[in-house]
Amino acid sequence: MGKKHKIKKLEKKVKRLKRDLKAALNHTSDVAPLAPKGGFPALPIIGGVRFSTAAAGVKYHGRQDVMLAEMIAGTTIAGVFTRSSTRAAPVLDCQVKLGSNPAQKAAFVVNSGNANAFTGANGPASVSKVTSGVAAQLNMPDNRVYSASTGVIGEPLPDGRITAKLAELASGLSADNIEAAANAIRTTDTFAKGAGAEIMIDGKPVRIAGIAKGSGMIQPDMATMLVFIFTDAVIDQVVLQGILSAQVNKTFNNITVDSDTSTSDSLLLAATGASGVTVTAENVAFSQALHGVMLDLAQQVVRDGEGATKLVTVHVTGAVSDQDAKTHALSIANSPLVKTAIAGEDPNWGRVVMAIGKSGATADRDLLSISFGDVLVAEKGWVSPNYSEEAAAAYMKHEELTIAVDLGLGNGEAKVWTCDLTHGYIQINADYRS
Amino acid sequence: MGKKHKIKKLEKKVKRLKRDLKAALNHTSDVAPLAPKGGFPALPIIGGVRFSTAAAGVKYHGRQDVMLAEMIAGTTIAGVFTRSSTRAAPVLDCQVKLGSNPAQKAAFVVNSGNANAFTGANGPASVSKVTSGVAAQLNMPDNRVYSASTGVIGEPLPDGRITAKLAELASGLSADNIEAAANAIRTTDTFAKGAGAEIMIDGKPVRIAGIAKGSGMIQPDMATMLVFIFTDAVIDQVVLQGILSAQVNKTFNNITVDSDTSTSDSLLLAATGASGVTVTAENVAFSQALHGVMLDLAQQVVRDGEGATKLVTVHVTGAVSDQDAKTHALSIANSPLVKTAIAGEDPNWGRVVMAIGKSGATADRDLLSISFGDVLVAEKGWVSPNYSEEAAAAYMKHEELTIAVDLGLGNGEAKVWTCDLTHGYIQINADYRS
Repeated sequence: MGKKHKIKKLEKKVKRLKRDLKAALNHTSDVAPLAPKGGFPALPIIGGVRFSTAAAGVKYHGRQDVMLAEMIAGTTIAGVFTRSSTRAAPVLDCQVKLGSNPAQKAAFVVNSGNANAFTGANGPASVSKVTSGVAAQLNMPDNRVYSASTGVIGEPLPDGRITAKLAELASGLSADNIEAAANAIRTTDTFAKGAGAEIMIDGKPVRIAGIAKGSGMIQPDMATMLVFIFTDAVIDQVVLQGILSAQVNKTFNNITVDSDTSTSDSLLLAATGASGVTVTAENVAFSQALHGVMLDLAQQVVRDGEGATKLVTVHVTGAVSDQDAKTHALSIANSPLVKTAIAGEDPNWGRVVMAIGKSGATADRDLLSISFGDVLVAEKGWVSPNYSEEAAAAYMKHEELTIAVDLGLGNGEAKVWTCDLTHGYIQINADYRS
Repeated sequence: MGKKHKIKKLEKKVKRLKRDLKAALNHTSDVAPLAPKGGFPALPIIGGVRFSTAAAGVKYHGRQDVMLAEMIAGTTIAGVFTRSSTRAAPVLDCQVKLGSNPAQKAAFVVNSGNANAFTGANGPASVSKVTSGVAAQLNMPDNRVYSASTGVIGEPLPDGRITAKLAELASGLSADNIEAAANAIRTTDTFAKGAGAEIMIDGKPVRIAGIAKGSGMIQPDMATMLVFIFTDAVIDQVVLQGILSAQVNKTFNNITVDSDTSTSDSLLLAATGASGVTVTAENVAFSQALHGVMLDLAQQVVRDGEGATKLVTVHVTGAVSDQDAKTHALSIANSPLVKTAIAGEDPNWGRVVMAIGKSGATADRDLLSISFGDVLVAEKGWVSPNYSEEAAAAYMKHEELTIAVDLGLGNGEAKVWTCDLTHGYIQINADYRS
């Protein structure tokens, strides 16, 4: 064989191997393939809130890693947090402070790079140093400063690096800085996450803007989800907490990337009242707008799920209760066999049957029907007589998919959002130590 | 650059790419790397049981895919089955037959290639044809014939292919044919699974032999676990069921490959009485021997888990109850983040903390300690002062690992066995449709 021929053959081999390797690793570009097109959205300015960021070098270097948000006196604050029994020190601190007197100013201070989780007695000590530092700097009581941390666990938070930046952070506060804030709280997120809404209530505008981070991991991190939402509505704290808790059960509590729950998940919602418009528990327009913002942010977290190439809506109807519907939906959304079938673009409804069967919630095999998009695949305990494998396989090639299950038992309903399970997930979580 | 130099460079590139690709796919050989050394074990002959196999072409061609086991009159039979609400027709049929009169002969008939699951009214009709066919062939009542099916779901069982082989199966029955039976029930298992024991009770030998299949999948299959165990002891049916149920909760119910539960899981235990030795509920030696056989088979299923390269024992102690300990252990064993860390040989104890936190069972962050093998990694809510990352990383390179968690709360204890989550798992379950 001539050298020229051999070179050609080897070059072909390299090309093929490169393609196979790329497929095997499900190679993702720098930004997740499911990232919203058009980049960070234009968000409304929320009266009564100012943001700033700083590069404190908590762990990362050469990037902003601390964000400060200051809210005016009168701001009410609601929150929901991870239920993990091993939750981090900042989470425990926030939970205590939720009932603080809204007459005073308030602040959120957040760092990336270190989660201050499983840090023993160092945990609350660091939280106290950071939050009392912010309180002194901005002239507010300690119990109005809420903190969150995300990043490596088990290492003491280098709180001095943060407190050294507080004067700089205080002087940099600005109303139009929310995108920088969204960037500062990222760990391995591939894009900054934001969503907003503007609605009219009693003929006056009310605005909502939120940012989130979630789903990236660096050893020995875990996926932490942090969400901060602001509105200029006037809302009583108890009402605000009620609205938030109701909406979280239809948005953030209905997403899953890999069934693993962080020790640091926190969502804080601040209502500054700057619009002068009062929102009560009965105001449907506000709840709907908040729902839209929260759902958008929640889906952005799934879109940035490790290795994700498909955004999947699991819609369960006909259950004996909403709770049962959610149990079935999460069982489907968390099943490794369902998630790998989706990655393989395989309309594998048998695995959906399996996931329903194992969930523990009520189901009758002979009443349930399953659809992938518009394709009815199974009904009455067997494959649908009109089922077309070709149509189902073609549907599975879409980037956004819906798996619909009707249990045929009652009126219970739930929607859950998830992503597929790919080589990229294994790559990110198993191989980085090489 | 000369051609010779270019060839050398390209060859180097090919070599590197091949290595990377192999690593990415976690390339497994034909037989799972964790398979027991030495092949199928020598099992004791169980008096009163005869086996035969046939190539019925249910789905596979050129291999044995049906097995028949015939037991003498007087044989008592106990069973445990999947709790899936979408369980298959043969499972429902077995559950009804468990109380059948032991005065008559009995049989197990098992096919691979088709699970007869989610097949509507065809399901029970096929079970009836096969079991009544066996009953007529072997001269026993229908309700003494137990069937199991494993393979593709949603397709009607071609029962005629099985009934056409019943005469051949009946004439081929032989006491020393158990290895062939273990092979006939395989789907994508990479090795046949068997385990046995011989103990002395009242100075007389009592024997136990069992076979299992589990953990392979072919689209649109799911992992089905089938287990058949035989003993020549004399055991009352109610006592036999009690012993079996107690042991299953310490063996098969404590393994997990991917948290997904099959629609067909079945374990049948037959006591022929041929030894003449009576075993009562109080006989510890028999229960211990049965435990050993069941644990061996259960661990073989994990060893054949898709893509598995590590066999992991999760040992939780100090829980407020055994049930709480098991909840924690399964939360750790099913966590995709823990399983990928193990695949990456990463002593990532932070993910173990996370899995304990999310389990829902009782834990106190500041009391728990975690060890990888002999390496104490965390205690009292923080990393151990003597923790050596080097020692832990070296330990993680072993093929068999133990993660031990002491919750420091009570006397509850559980052991769970699992495997790692690798590119091989994704490869098997997502990529085969290419």
